[in-house]
Amino acid sequence: MKILVINAGSSSLKFQLFDMENESVIAKGNCEKIGLPASFIGYKTNGDKKEVAIKMSNHVEALENVLKILTDKNEGVIKSLSEISACGHRVVQGGWIFDKSVLVTKKVLKDLEKLTDLSPLHAHANMAGINGCLKVMPKVPQVLVFDTSFHATMPEKAYNYGIKYQDAEKYHIRKYGFHGTSHRFVANECARLMKKKLEDLNLITVHMGNGSSITAIEKGKSIDTTMGLTPLEGLIMGTRSGDLDPSVVSYLADKKGQSASEVVSYLNKECGMLGISGVSSDLREINDAVVKGNKRAKLALDMLKYRTKKFIGSYMAVLGKVDAIVFTGGVGENQEDLREEALKGLENYGIILDVKKNSSLPRGTNELISTKKSKVKVYRIPTDEELLIARDTLELIKK
Amino acid sequence: MKILVINAGSSSLKFQLFDMENESVIAKGNCEKIGLPASFIGYKTNGDKKEVAIKMSNHVEALENVLKILTDKNEGVIKSLSEISACGHRVVQGGWIFDKSVLVTKKVLKDLEKLTDLSPLHAHANMAGINGCLKVMPKVPQVLVFDTSFHATMPEKAYNYGIKYQDAEKYHIRKYGFHGTSHRFVANECARLMKKKLEDLNLITVHMGNGSSITAIEKGKSIDTTMGLTPLEGLIMGTRSGDLDPSVVSYLADKKGQSASEVVSYLNKECGMLGISGVSSDLREINDAVVKGNKRAKLALDMLKYRTKKFIGSYMAVLGKVDAIVFTGGVGENQEDLREEALKGLENYGIILDVKKNSSLPRGTNELISTKKSKVKVYRIPTDEELLIARDTLELIKK
Repeated sequence: MKILVINAGSSSLKFQLFDMENESVIAKGNCEKIGLPASFIGYKTNGDKKEVAIKMSNHVEALENVLKILTDKNEGVIKSLSEISACGHRVVQGGWIFDKSVLVTKKVLKDLEKLTDLSPLHAHANMAGINGCLKVMPKVPQVLVFDTSFHATMPEKAYNYGIKYQDAEKYHIRKYGFHGTSHRFVANECARLMKKKLEDLNLITVHMGNGSSITAIEKGKSIDTTMGLTPLEGLIMGTRSGDLDPSVVSYLADKKGQSASEVVSYLNKECGMLGISGVSSDLREINDAVVKGNKRAKLALDMLKYRTKKFIGSYMAVLGKVDAIVFTGGVGENQEDLREEALKGLENYGIILDVKKNSSLPRGTNELISTKKSKVKVYRIPTDEELLIARDTLELIKK
Repeated sequence: MKILVINAGSSSLKFQLFDMENESVIAKGNCEKIGLPASFIGYKTNGDKKEVAIKMSNHVEALENVLKILTDKNEGVIKSLSEISACGHRVVQGGWIFDKSVLVTKKVLKDLEKLTDLSPLHAHANMAGINGCLKVMPKVPQVLVFDTSFHATMPEKAYNYGIKYQDAEKYHIRKYGFHGTSHRFVANECARLMKKKLEDLNLITVHMGNGSSITAIEKGKSIDTTMGLTPLEGLIMGTRSGDLDPSVVSYLADKKGQSASEVVSYLNKECGMLGISGVSSDLREINDAVVKGNKRAKLALDMLKYRTKKFIGSYMAVLGKVDAIVFTGGVGENQEDLREEALKGLENYGIILDVKKNSSLPRGTNELISTKKSKVKVYRIPTDEELLIARDTLELIKK
């Protein structure tokens, strides 16, 4: 059984085709610059990676081209569209409505529209992907998997902000959390590696990539996470500031003569690792700059490590007993000094990293990186959000 | 030797006269509604508390009346102004300039003006108090004690925000921290009670009152604190929201058609415990409402406890080894269930509260409230910021 996973951005559309017999990826690619002059598709089917310039005015045209590639006589991987049993869509914001993955129905689409207001850009992009599939594959079941739904189990005391209750209610302002699919994926993997049931485990999952978040998982359920109403809150990220005094928004607005929206856009796009270092949002380039003695690059990296440690500490306190800490995401998986610094000095609390092993990991493997004496196990586990979307999709169409 | 401690607000002026021979308070009071129609002074000198309606158009007139009261033939406590050896002023914002208490000079006043921009309301009020004293007691040395200066030892990675470095530099946007005088006072008291040198101790000091902050103290020095550029950041407070997704500012601005400044003013004045509970900013009234079954009052209290625990956890991680946790401030000293809930579940990390003792404390005493087995000592220590201001003042005029 084959499942197509779609991740639609405002001018992009990523896809992966899974063969669920063995959970293998048989084709993957990305339509880029949709609606822009130089649109193209990069993809890999049977052979090497390819990049082809193709005019795509919208997400429907992008999907038509994806399906053409998948069914191409020479380089395609399926004979006809009928081989695709279902599509699974990554949807960023499930708001207060969706606490788990769902099969698309008219009601679901109507509910989804109610959430547009919470994060308009993401919502429009996700809708374009869903509507595109409904148009080009009208008979294929569509499943929505939300970044937020894993965090729907957070208790009131964790998801509420300290604002006027009436405003929180009226405007649905609360912590939703994101990266739920990744946190859920690595939590499941961790339980499997530990040979325990997930519902018996307390975990701290650290997803760090271009966007980053940390989640406290109690008996298998998310009880707190660092991202909030939007993915701006929490850790310092590639271009996002993360937490700051809310007064900084009005202070900057006054100083720069900008609106609150303009400042928040700046906090999302020009700050974080890029803004502090002045070098790049990409940790690989920041690492290079640190080696060359760039002080601001070092400051950015030091801040990232320091704040990671602080969030881990706060979730240690919230959970009381932690069974394992899991690092994942491009940065979490590959930045050894981040893991080392974030856990340094936590020996008193039962967390002892195997520093040597941590610094010599192959890429892309599941690894236990704490010492035998460590009461809290520490893992590096590569994430695979698309696979989890495919799994959820399979499960829902089986019902 | 007698020292007058002044704490000037925009329309108020609190004073305490200390006899430094035995560090006793020989007179104290508060000029309220300065510049408003119904201005009055509440004070206590020799006998009972008194409240007298007195027209005070400005801080100079307020101070003139304070000095009249102190030297009054019948109810005064000193014979003449010459008995006052110095004044100590509480100053909220010492910014990037003042890392310790200072004697007022022309240069100091000029430097102080440079900081006006950071928190205009506080700065103008503090300046009114200082200028008032310079006018009515031109020959008496004036000492400034800053809420921020204890935190001047924070490292770069702790005080920087994840914003564009150039903006942080240009506009002096960073974490300054507040309540420094209180954190420093209880840290000293704690060292005294533990019979250790402060510079040998790692402490977490929890100051909770109408405003609240928690500080991580490493070898006697503040290395991090929850308040930031302004006192809005960090814990949920009486009317302040504390931490939230910076996007909430622009989201609310959009929804309500307000400017960033208006939203931040709302976050300072209408949110926090008051905004969540809808009852009051005063924990005593919130406690009463909880007893009567008010769910939102309970939510506000639960959130306060939960976030206190999270910050304690993050500073446990930052410090690695904690010698003691100290609770102070009106709420920190008197809200037993807050201390209990904030520390519940931290037994794994060596923190064991003596729950019985914690729940039966007399008011206003220094108390060790952890069990003998607890690796981390827990104290309830009443704060006395005015006394520390008087001590700093004495020390500086002795030089």
